Amino acid sequence: MSKEIVTIAIDAMGGENSPQKTIEGLSIFLQKNKNQNDFFFNLYGDEEKISKELDKQSIKSKNLKIYHTKSIVSDEESPITAVKNSKDSSMWHTINSQIIHNSDISISAGNTGVLFVISRMILKTMKQINKPALAGLWPNKSGTNVVLDLGANIECNENNLVDFAEMGSALYKSLFQDKKPKVSILNIGSEEIKGTETIKKAHSLLKEIAKKGDFEFNGYIEGNKIPDGSSNVIVTDGFTGNVALKTAEGTAKFLTDTLKNIVSENIISKLLISFSYFSLKKFKAKLDPRKFNGAIFLGLNGPVVKSHGSTDSLGFYHAIDLCYKIIKGNLMKEIKVNLSHLDEK
Amino acid sequence: MSKEIVTIAIDAMGGENSPQKTIEGLSIFLQKNKNQNDFFFNLYGDEEKISKELDKQSIKSKNLKIYHTKSIVSDEESPITAVKNSKDSSMWHTINSQIIHNSDISISAGNTGVLFVISRMILKTMKQINKPALAGLWPNKSGTNVVLDLGANIECNENNLVDFAEMGSALYKSLFQDKKPKVSILNIGSEEIKGTETIKKAHSLLKEIAKKGDFEFNGYIEGNKIPDGSSNVIVTDGFTGNVALKTAEGTAKFLTDTLKNIVSENIISKLLISFSYFSLKKFKAKLDPRKFNGAIFLGLNGPVVKSHGSTDSLGFYHAIDLCYKIIKGNLMKEIKVNLSHLDEK
Repeated sequence: MSKEIVTIAIDAMGGENSPQKTIEGLSIFLQKNKNQNDFFFNLYGDEEKISKELDKQSIKSKNLKIYHTKSIVSDEESPITAVKNSKDSSMWHTINSQIIHNSDISISAGNTGVLFVISRMILKTMKQINKPALAGLWPNKSGTNVVLDLGANIECNENNLVDFAEMGSALYKSLFQDKKPKVSILNIGSEEIKGTETIKKAHSLLKEIAKKGDFEFNGYIEGNKIPDGSSNVIVTDGFTGNVALKTAEGTAKFLTDTLKNIVSENIISKLLISFSYFSLKKFKAKLDPRKFNGAIFLGLNGPVVKSHGSTDSLGFYHAIDLCYKIIKGNLMKEIKVNLSHLDEK
Repeated sequence: MSKEIVTIAIDAMGGENSPQKTIEGLSIFLQKNKNQNDFFFNLYGDEEKISKELDKQSIKSKNLKIYHTKSIVSDEESPITAVKNSKDSSMWHTINSQIIHNSDISISAGNTGVLFVISRMILKTMKQINKPALAGLWPNKSGTNVVLDLGANIECNENNLVDFAEMGSALYKSLFQDKKPKVSILNIGSEEIKGTETIKKAHSLLKEIAKKGDFEFNGYIEGNKIPDGSSNVIVTDGFTGNVALKTAEGTAKFLTDTLKNIVSENIISKLLISFSYFSLKKFKAKLDPRKFNGAIFLGLNGPVVKSHGSTDSLGFYHAIDLCYKIIKGNLMKEIKVNLSHLDEK
């Protein structure tokens, strides 16, 4: 049974080129879902600017409401002083929307560190969870992986990794209606003796916990196997996850740039390649990072989606769509089910 | 002043498809350096098989000698029992060659774990170094990076990271005759406050040590910046380095496979792409992993190069060439110079 009306709180001001980008992203969502009526948007930011963008996009939807806010969290704002400085900001109100305006989920393309601190402060960490985590979606041969933590916690113990497995598999279930995702721990070898003590302990804990049926435990996975699609949920500490994510991004960019440069070195190959336009367009479309935009803070009493600050309107649309899908898929309920064995503790 | 005669000990039996691969690799080296006379090879393995391969390649070089050995270290051999089981092996004798046959460097495509244990046992760790490290070469926009550690030490303290910086920059100098390589620490952000305590301590140590002039310290680098060529030497613990390396490999393979599949989906694009053959060949050649084959164990009283077990003869040639270059570039002397400030301790 999925949620009847999904209410999404949008920080209309966060990230580069906002509110133009955020409202254009919303416009794409409304276009693509024009036959649906199961969503509502609470928009936070400068009312005048937002209204202007809504007019530009000819958005006349009844399924949205603007809440005027006075300030914007800058990219330079430190997480340490953010709580004091940001109470009037669009970001703060977007998160607080889950408390006072019945939003199911909040989304922002603003300052990540500040978003994390504010979210934690307002929504509070779930009582069963010690450390909330940042989960991301990675493309693979056969679809999409969930990888977490991507940088919220640079040091993690075995219990944190187990929590990540439970939350990550709940996220995967809500997104893909898969009853039993395959979970692996990122490691430097596939044998049981490999890895740090923390990883080995997490391995034996997950082997046990998998028996209650929330997910299938696949053991260890190495970095080169992430894209082969054999695991749906890949668990790691935030330091390793962040390095892996950025290294993958850098490698992908390096390869495509190199290909582009070589092709444009001579006019004949440039011409011939341009005839293969549709193939290359398909290639680009398949791996378009905008499709995988949106990282999810898990472990708070309400989900928060972080869009890349530098993405464009299409990227922001994908992050809105992600919000919609995980609420339709009952993310919070799935997390609670997965963590229910901890309630007695 | 570079070394007059470079003597390289080759484990002719290690890795898939050896000794055919190793001897073919040697043959490529001899072809490419036929006007040089500044090298000598000590070959270890089954004399009959090696001689047969040398005949097949019509190698009549006087600059080599075969030493017959009785056994081969299998890929399944555990590092724990290896010392007991491998004393007759081609791998053991290849390493021991630096002690008894005046070899400057040893190379093997065999079992990595065993190679590491044997090398450490025979060559011993340098007195200034606490943990030897495995360094690799990564392609980047403008050339090649050195990255270490790639998996020898899963947990490292700040002093280990400093040692890696000294050894990595010595390696870079020996390879590229660059007097002052740029060194960075792999981290999840570029601000000084980011990262683990160990990383922050290494940051302030390296800032100080860089003043003596062995290298320039560039601070932190994130995974996505590795390929941009702004740093020559990238320092990290073996767990993170191994994950980053494998994630980069996996991403590269995923991208090229996806491109290949899309292109071959329809006959027209296949045809058009095949006309762009030279461009794509150039692309492939530029990023050919065989060119970057060969990881270097640093921190022992003699260098050891590990070739990929599954590479082919061209890949093995590149690893032999790497051995030749780093000895010509006086690797061990460069390391000693970089570590000389530790001698008084």
